Amino acid sequence: MKNYFIAKSRRLRSTPYTSRIEKQGVTAYSIYNHMLLPAAFGSLEDSYHHLKEHVQIWDVAGERQVEISGKDSAKLVQLMTCRDLSKSKIGRCYYCPIIDDNAGMINDPVILKLQEDRWWISIADSDVILFAKGLAIGNNLNVKIFEPNVDIMAVQGPKSFKLMEKIFGEKITKMKFFGFDYFNFDGAKHLIARSGWSKQGGYEIYVENTKSGLALYDKLFEEGKELNVKPGCPNLIERIESALLSYGNDMDNDDNPLECGLDKYVSLDTEINFLGKDKLKQIKKNGLIKKLMGVIIEAKEINVSKSIELLDKDNLKIGELRSGVYSPHFKKVIGIAMINKPYYNLSQTFKISINGTIFEGKVCDLPFI
Amino acid sequence: MKNYFIAKSRRLRSTPYTSRIEKQGVTAYSIYNHMLLPAAFGSLEDSYHHLKEHVQIWDVAGERQVEISGKDSAKLVQLMTCRDLSKSKIGRCYYCPIIDDNAGMINDPVILKLQEDRWWISIADSDVILFAKGLAIGNNLNVKIFEPNVDIMAVQGPKSFKLMEKIFGEKITKMKFFGFDYFNFDGAKHLIARSGWSKQGGYEIYVENTKSGLALYDKLFEEGKELNVKPGCPNLIERIESALLSYGNDMDNDDNPLECGLDKYVSLDTEINFLGKDKLKQIKKNGLIKKLMGVIIEAKEINVSKSIELLDKDNLKIGELRSGVYSPHFKKVIGIAMINKPYYNLSQTFKISINGTIFEGKVCDLPFI
Repeated sequence: MKNYFIAKSRRLRSTPYTSRIEKQGVTAYSIYNHMLLPAAFGSLEDSYHHLKEHVQIWDVAGERQVEISGKDSAKLVQLMTCRDLSKSKIGRCYYCPIIDDNAGMINDPVILKLQEDRWWISIADSDVILFAKGLAIGNNLNVKIFEPNVDIMAVQGPKSFKLMEKIFGEKITKMKFFGFDYFNFDGAKHLIARSGWSKQGGYEIYVENTKSGLALYDKLFEEGKELNVKPGCPNLIERIESALLSYGNDMDNDDNPLECGLDKYVSLDTEINFLGKDKLKQIKKNGLIKKLMGVIIEAKEINVSKSIELLDKDNLKIGELRSGVYSPHFKKVIGIAMINKPYYNLSQTFKISINGTIFEGKVCDLPFI
Repeated sequence: MKNYFIAKSRRLRSTPYTSRIEKQGVTAYSIYNHMLLPAAFGSLEDSYHHLKEHVQIWDVAGERQVEISGKDSAKLVQLMTCRDLSKSKIGRCYYCPIIDDNAGMINDPVILKLQEDRWWISIADSDVILFAKGLAIGNNLNVKIFEPNVDIMAVQGPKSFKLMEKIFGEKITKMKFFGFDYFNFDGAKHLIARSGWSKQGGYEIYVENTKSGLALYDKLFEEGKELNVKPGCPNLIERIESALLSYGNDMDNDDNPLECGLDKYVSLDTEINFLGKDKLKQIKKNGLIKKLMGVIIEAKEINVSKSIELLDKDNLKIGELRSGVYSPHFKKVIGIAMINKPYYNLSQTFKISINGTIFEGKVCDLPFI
């Protein structure tokens, strides 16, 4: 596959870490929420093995926050997500599908409850702030909505606990998954969550004080030397093996959360009021017409830059591949595909054309590992 | 400046023209509305000279449409823009700032009135569809909002009129600027507007029938051979010389339309109801605190990937450069800058650091040419 350059401009915003990662050897970018998101530091496979064994520091500032505060903030946040947040606690993160009145996915953020009347929606790649503003204005809600200066760096990998303990002490290793708390560094207080877009363990540091955050970035590399720390980024192989869904890749506004397998984040049997609730009830009653599934393909290489059709033996389309990568673990291509009814049963076989060659594949469960 | 690759994925959507422009030598992409937007076919300066003399075909499918139809569609569209659309006509395009309740810019689309109750908002780079949906839901408006399959190709340059006449006949040369009409090609009807993101003249073809659109794309190159047609894309030099503003580059949600010099699209002395109207009246009464201006810098090269501070002789910040490029016409760097009060008077001088070297510059009017 031929490579193309990215044309930088202010519209594709830099992060506070950009100048550092460019010195550290970033080779490719994606764009996420109008911001540069590192996508490779040389070999994807080397970085995958390193992530699974050691510790990496990621510039994921593209995971922007939408801050919603004020008297009606809880009401607005609940209106936007089909997950019941009525029992949510301060100091916890919640993975929440955001859907519109037609139940179409708009985003799948992690929502942080900072206070009873102050929330951060840590968003995937769509302008949730505009949806929130529109809803707030239209419903005449008493809220303040803005994008704060928060630039997340993630510390990911099995040695992340050891590294963070060296800097913040034992307390940080006691934090539960999807909990967050505040930690001091270099005169500033940082919100740190036990979270991150890998299944290798780690933290996300929500940097508000840029100066202190940059000092912390450097400190992490200094203290991490003996742990073989490296710069990194969300890794396509690791995230597909772990079935961490990517909004815009695996799902979009034409899909609903039930089709995406997010049933446990859909709270239909509650009294809470959210957009798309009636539509979701109707969808559940009628049954799904497509479903997000794993696929394993007997191939050694793939580059998915758009949906690729999956065909049955009679060349009828049974679904489409939306993400895919060669997995060193399975020694095959694995991927995430939207499969039409009735083909989304396990072990359904299909054909797929990759660069003009036909390969065999079969449908499987998610996650792979 | 070091170059970085773009990491392609389904999330950064391809267009129907992507495979064609990749065969035709595209070298760099930007991302626009989650879609690949070609940013270079080799030399920016060669393409600039070619655009000003001949004719180019551009893949600008990233200019997505937000379709709003239904009984309350005119009400919703007017609510979103500070430009008075009460006398707008079917078959015309309108450049319209979209602002929020705080008068902050959200987008600066061209709005096409298709019917009295059917509109296309042809957007710059932000998810206007989410703002429209939120407002419609919150206000309980009777509208249908979606992103139709429309992939614009632009025909730009002084010879675009001759080229389009060869295919569509003399009628198309009679169309007025910012008018649109429907033209047949290869069994399909195409909406074609006399518009485009250059000041060199031309058309934008709103392709809904992809098959016919691709045939038309090929036909334009075939018929254009004798006119020296080439593939191209919005050109940074040409657009800055012409002061075509770019949302996200030159202005963003922290700026209001008066600060951006868009006064003639701000209809405060009317009875119409739009978001941010009271706020704009207050801003107008209090006076501006910053203003978008042109700048000329005594340098031969610049790459603007983020705001660059402009300093007065005492090293006080007087504003920031947001876009900039070397202009072969002026033989200097020109740019678009947000200048703080009271420094936005013409001929104000400043200093700017470009790659560690200090250059002199001065404030000027827009457009340059």
